[in-house]
Amino acid sequence: MAEKKLENSEIFNSYFKNLTERERAVFEGGISLGALFHQFVGTPVSNKTKKSLELAISESLKNQPFIKDISVSIILDIEEGKYVSLDGNMLDVSLTVNTKEEENSVILRLKYIKELDYPLMYVEKI
Amino acid sequence: MAEKKLENSEIFNSYFKNLTERERAVFEGGISLGALFHQFVGTPVSNKTKKSLELAISESLKNQPFIKDISVSIILDIEEGKYVSLDGNMLDVSLTVNTKEEENSVILRLKYIKELDYPLMYVEKI
Amino acid sequence: MAEKKLENSEIFNSYFKNLTERERAVFEGGISLGALFHQFVGTPVSNKTKKSLELAISESLKNQPFIKDISVSIILDIEEGKYVSLDGNMLDVSLTVNTKEEENSVILRLKYIKELDYPLMYVEKI
Amino acid sequence: MAEKKLENSEIFNSYFKNLTERERAVFEGGISLGALFHQFVGTPVSNKTKKSLELAISESLKNQPFIKDISVSIILDIEEGKYVSLDGNMLDVSLTVNTKEEENSVILRLKYIKELDYPLMYVEKI
Repeated sequence: MAEKKLENSEIFNSYFKNLTERERAVFEGGISLGALFHQFVGTPVSNKTKKSLELAISESLKNQPFIKDISVSIILDIEEGKYVSLDGNMLDVSLTVNTKEEENSVILRLKYIKELDYPLMYVEKI
Repeated sequence: MAEKKLENSEIFNSYFKNLTERERAVFEGGISLGALFHQFVGTPVSNKTKKSLELAISESLKNQPFIKDISVSIILDIEEGKYVSLDGNMLDVSLTVNTKEEENSVILRLKYIKELDYPLMYVEKI
Repeated sequence: MAEKKLENSEIFNSYFKNLTERERAVFEGGISLGALFHQFVGTPVSNKTKKSLELAISESLKNQPFIKDISVSIILDIEEGKYVSLDGNMLDVSLTVNTKEEENSVILRLKYIKELDYPLMYVEKI
Repeated sequence: MAEKKLENSEIFNSYFKNLTERERAVFEGGISLGALFHQFVGTPVSNKTKKSLELAISESLKNQPFIKDISVSIILDIEEGKYVSLDGNMLDVSLTVNTKEEENSVILRLKYIKELDYPLMYVEKI
């Protein structure tokens, strides 16, 4: 059923004629990282429920155009029995975007950078 | 580790002396339904990723005070290969709140009501 | 046009026959506090944009059933030129719910409680 | 106080040496569009509260790196007195990103495309 996917639609693709493959990959990857952060920050999470949240984040993001792979780790440092709201600084995400050929994967990252005290989104491999 | 839980804290409970058990149950349940809706609406979802999202919603909500059980169904009517943003009208949730004794469970519901064209939150059993 | 409002609909009200006025007030207020928290946590905010966010939160919540008044303060302690993601601990909210008569207002609160290290939602006046 | 801004930090910029100016602009713009959509979708909105929500979205997004300007319109078609949850299809956003020189602005767009039945994010001018 792949032919029904958005990224195989001619109308969809007609909007991106002004971008190179690299530009399109970082654009789509940027959208997905921004989406992930702002969708899930605030979710109640504990050691017990971390795994199911990591999985749901990964699975939901794979729906988005050109997202080929994603790994999501939530870095939690809390006591058993307690829970917190998911904070962007807890997220360590690696996202593989593929707009065309398998060999041209772009890898993006969301990771807390201590020196910046900021959850940075950047391009790790292009 | 149950003793570390918020709902076992005296300071926590001191804030709720002005509520009956029933009032407290519907208050906590209301918070959790409002939280669930506004946390997850917007999440990309497809037939393929529905299950993992339902599970993560259930698990995350179980972290909240007094939530004893929860069942979450996402009513999706889309083609294979497509995805949509989770809409509140797609949610069918049943939430069991227990502030004290097992036998005094309160059951709350979030469900789309056709006649109202509105995803209603209400108390099903008290 | 008040007659079009949800809370004036007979079908809507038929779902709440099992609750006292007090129970209904804390239920609706709980929903709104849970909604507020999980909708807006994560929003980029700075000293410069704090006011417009406080206003939008207030205004949007006033749409919900029986919310008569709301005051929202974001407690920000950051340097000029910087921004952060809104965190639940920064929120100080007072919510007035009125299911029937003006004199029976219920006031709910969302406020960070230091002793609990937790953004507590509770009923301040009932 | 501009010197405190993230985008003037050398550490921050060291993560982006692998991108051209165009790539960086579409990356940052993509992040902001994904953020905007997934942060605000679900917010209660009515004709009466539309303006304050549009303003808060604009203001909050201006905090993000390199966002020079943004216009946000919410396309609402509802009766007076009613409200709905903000849906991605209601958003019409134009975002100006400037990584360096004023003349090299990149303009991004979020807009519902009828033929796709999809709220598309794309690059309008580069």
